[in-house]
Amino acid sequence: MKRSFIPVEAESHFPIQNLPYGVFRPKNSDVPRIGVAIGDYVLDLAVLDEAGHFNTTSVAGKQVFHQSSLNAFMALGRTAWREVRTQLQRLLSEDEPTLRDNVSLRKRALLRQSDVELLLPAQIGDYTDFYASKEHATNVGIMFRGKENALMPNWTHLPVGYHGRASSVILSGTDIRRPQGQMKLPDTPTPVFGPCRQLDFELELGWFIGPGNSMGQPISVENAEEQIFGLVLVNDWSARDIQSWEYQPLGPFLAKNFATSVSPWVVPLDALEPFRVMGPQQDPEPLSYLRTKGAGAFDIHLEVYLQGEKMKNPHRILTSNFRYLYWSMAQQIAHHTVGGCNLRPGDLLASGTISGPQKETRGCMLELTWRGAEPIRLNNGEQRIWVEDGDTVTMTGWCQGDGYRVGFGQVTGRVLPALK
Amino acid sequence: MKRSFIPVEAESHFPIQNLPYGVFRPKNSDVPRIGVAIGDYVLDLAVLDEAGHFNTTSVAGKQVFHQSSLNAFMALGRTAWREVRTQLQRLLSEDEPTLRDNVSLRKRALLRQSDVELLLPAQIGDYTDFYASKEHATNVGIMFRGKENALMPNWTHLPVGYHGRASSVILSGTDIRRPQGQMKLPDTPTPVFGPCRQLDFELELGWFIGPGNSMGQPISVENAEEQIFGLVLVNDWSARDIQSWEYQPLGPFLAKNFATSVSPWVVPLDALEPFRVMGPQQDPEPLSYLRTKGAGAFDIHLEVYLQGEKMKNPHRILTSNFRYLYWSMAQQIAHHTVGGCNLRPGDLLASGTISGPQKETRGCMLELTWRGAEPIRLNNGEQRIWVEDGDTVTMTGWCQGDGYRVGFGQVTGRVLPALK
Repeated sequence: MKRSFIPVEAESHFPIQNLPYGVFRPKNSDVPRIGVAIGDYVLDLAVLDEAGHFNTTSVAGKQVFHQSSLNAFMALGRTAWREVRTQLQRLLSEDEPTLRDNVSLRKRALLRQSDVELLLPAQIGDYTDFYASKEHATNVGIMFRGKENALMPNWTHLPVGYHGRASSVILSGTDIRRPQGQMKLPDTPTPVFGPCRQLDFELELGWFIGPGNSMGQPISVENAEEQIFGLVLVNDWSARDIQSWEYQPLGPFLAKNFATSVSPWVVPLDALEPFRVMGPQQDPEPLSYLRTKGAGAFDIHLEVYLQGEKMKNPHRILTSNFRYLYWSMAQQIAHHTVGGCNLRPGDLLASGTISGPQKETRGCMLELTWRGAEPIRLNNGEQRIWVEDGDTVTMTGWCQGDGYRVGFGQVTGRVLPALK
Repeated sequence: MKRSFIPVEAESHFPIQNLPYGVFRPKNSDVPRIGVAIGDYVLDLAVLDEAGHFNTTSVAGKQVFHQSSLNAFMALGRTAWREVRTQLQRLLSEDEPTLRDNVSLRKRALLRQSDVELLLPAQIGDYTDFYASKEHATNVGIMFRGKENALMPNWTHLPVGYHGRASSVILSGTDIRRPQGQMKLPDTPTPVFGPCRQLDFELELGWFIGPGNSMGQPISVENAEEQIFGLVLVNDWSARDIQSWEYQPLGPFLAKNFATSVSPWVVPLDALEPFRVMGPQQDPEPLSYLRTKGAGAFDIHLEVYLQGEKMKNPHRILTSNFRYLYWSMAQQIAHHTVGGCNLRPGDLLASGTISGPQKETRGCMLELTWRGAEPIRLNNGEQRIWVEDGDTVTMTGWCQGDGYRVGFGQVTGRVLPALK
């Protein structure tokens, strides 16, 4: 197994096999730059670039690591990403002296993660959210329309998706203000205004787009993965009561646009390659523009924790897996662009709630409590139907290798009471 | 009546009463900058700024006119916009010698519109589309769900809206590629893939946001107009067959994201002030966060022309008016932000199709031809149900003053055949 000279524990999310990209600012500096996580450290790529360690790669002279977002690096495409990744794995490996034995360079380039502030990894031009879990769509459908009409007729033919709000995509750790809004209560004839009473999370993964495509020029399903720079955890916070009143006929709006949280470290698609698996069987066979051969899913274990203000420890309320998704990332990208829509570097696409077949793999409170019928019991005896003020929701996930983990770190957020 | 020393005909859209902002590049230069339209000319604000003519305003030293988008100027807010507008009206007025009699400055600052290339006026972070015409929502509802269920129960209680695609908002004059996509034909059991057969336009107006708000801090309906920098014409191209198959339950996606065209000149809200009128009576009375006093609508006459490849002249296929909209711009902004969603400088909000009570005021082909039941006859004898390849759709609009017009110019686009 490949190892780094930097000590990395077996359960760390950030071994040399991962090397996720992020944007950070040293606590003693105002200047953001790009880094990768390795163990408990951040490796400053701007410093390595200045020292000439990318001179033999396509990023040479492009200043893509002296940036406040990953967009410029994302725009360069997969060949550049691979050259940089190869070079970083070489520089960090235990038997390579270049960085290991250069005390001055190590001091400048390696910072403890506790000594940096992480920033949003990309300037997101557009954010798209899909609905790619069949179990999630089925469960929601049963609750809202009954068992007979659970899945809409289009669902098994195309990856249903919609445009989300880019301005309110925020970094893990940012507090969430409980939204107010209009809702229709069952016992009143007209809608009321007030704080959301059915606040929920949605466990998702998202992926950032690389070079993208020109308007009118679709990305084929065969070439779609070339566009995936890397993945992050996404919590698509949702106000269910606002959603059920507003969403007909144009889809969710205020129910989703108050906040969407993402994790700071972008895990390269190449780091996930060893964990590629077959996705669910697709029946009926998709139309040709969505038809793929081989394994398009990834075995990524996912967990969600909830911690109320009175709880000493977070309580794990669900586990799921990215491999459950019916529609692959490649299919979602191909569908998104087939009509000519252009994707740009830094655009974020997310999967929709990742639910699996078992009850404990349901990816949001709506499904876990079956719209309130089956409350969750927490480790201090409290119950939950929805997310309450003061609750912190934390999602994490990793791929389990032989003696190492390729992990996503976490996305976390605490709920503040609604404005008075 | 206020007049400029620059000759402006009575039917020109760009008298001294208007002064819309745009981004342009002189044909002999690579450097974009900000200008205003006056008659057949563009006044280069970067040149005026360099010459010190904004030194007494809040834009002094901020370089907001040496830019490739209006975002920096939009971010400054209404006081700065008014100072600049007042100064421009002074400099352009017939009895003010500063610019009029300075031959050298005039030569540098005034360019013929035919000698410049216009660019997209803003870098649009997020684009939101509303559904604010009651007549449009009712007509569509009757066609899709029957007369009894035409308006959804939420429609009269809130301005229904959804997030559109920012990446594919394009400037007037850009050709539109007919999208391909998945659709469900009535006579086949499974969906098919192919070129859209029901291509449509939607007549809309859009408005660019100024400083915006922080996440979690709503904009009140009273303060909402302070956030409106100015308005443009919007053609929200729509693929009806793709839309009807995909839109349940998350709303339109590929049916809309292939292209949205906007006009280049942004008409300041202050230029529309003389044309403020009462909007339609709202019944039921909206909830308090949407309740407004006074006139929140604007009397803007709108026209749409269609010209096929074989037609010598464009044919006017409808006239409408912005005043027909049920929900005001202020109400749409207040609703958008009431849950905490943040708006940023340069964000674009659009009204949705602007239809009125008469048949000839219906703002899209879907309504005009009643889903194909009543084809339109054009001036060369051709008929249309939907927009065909080679057709050019042009929208225009203006406010009629006493001897002058405050106009929007036009938004136009020609349809190219689908990719083979």
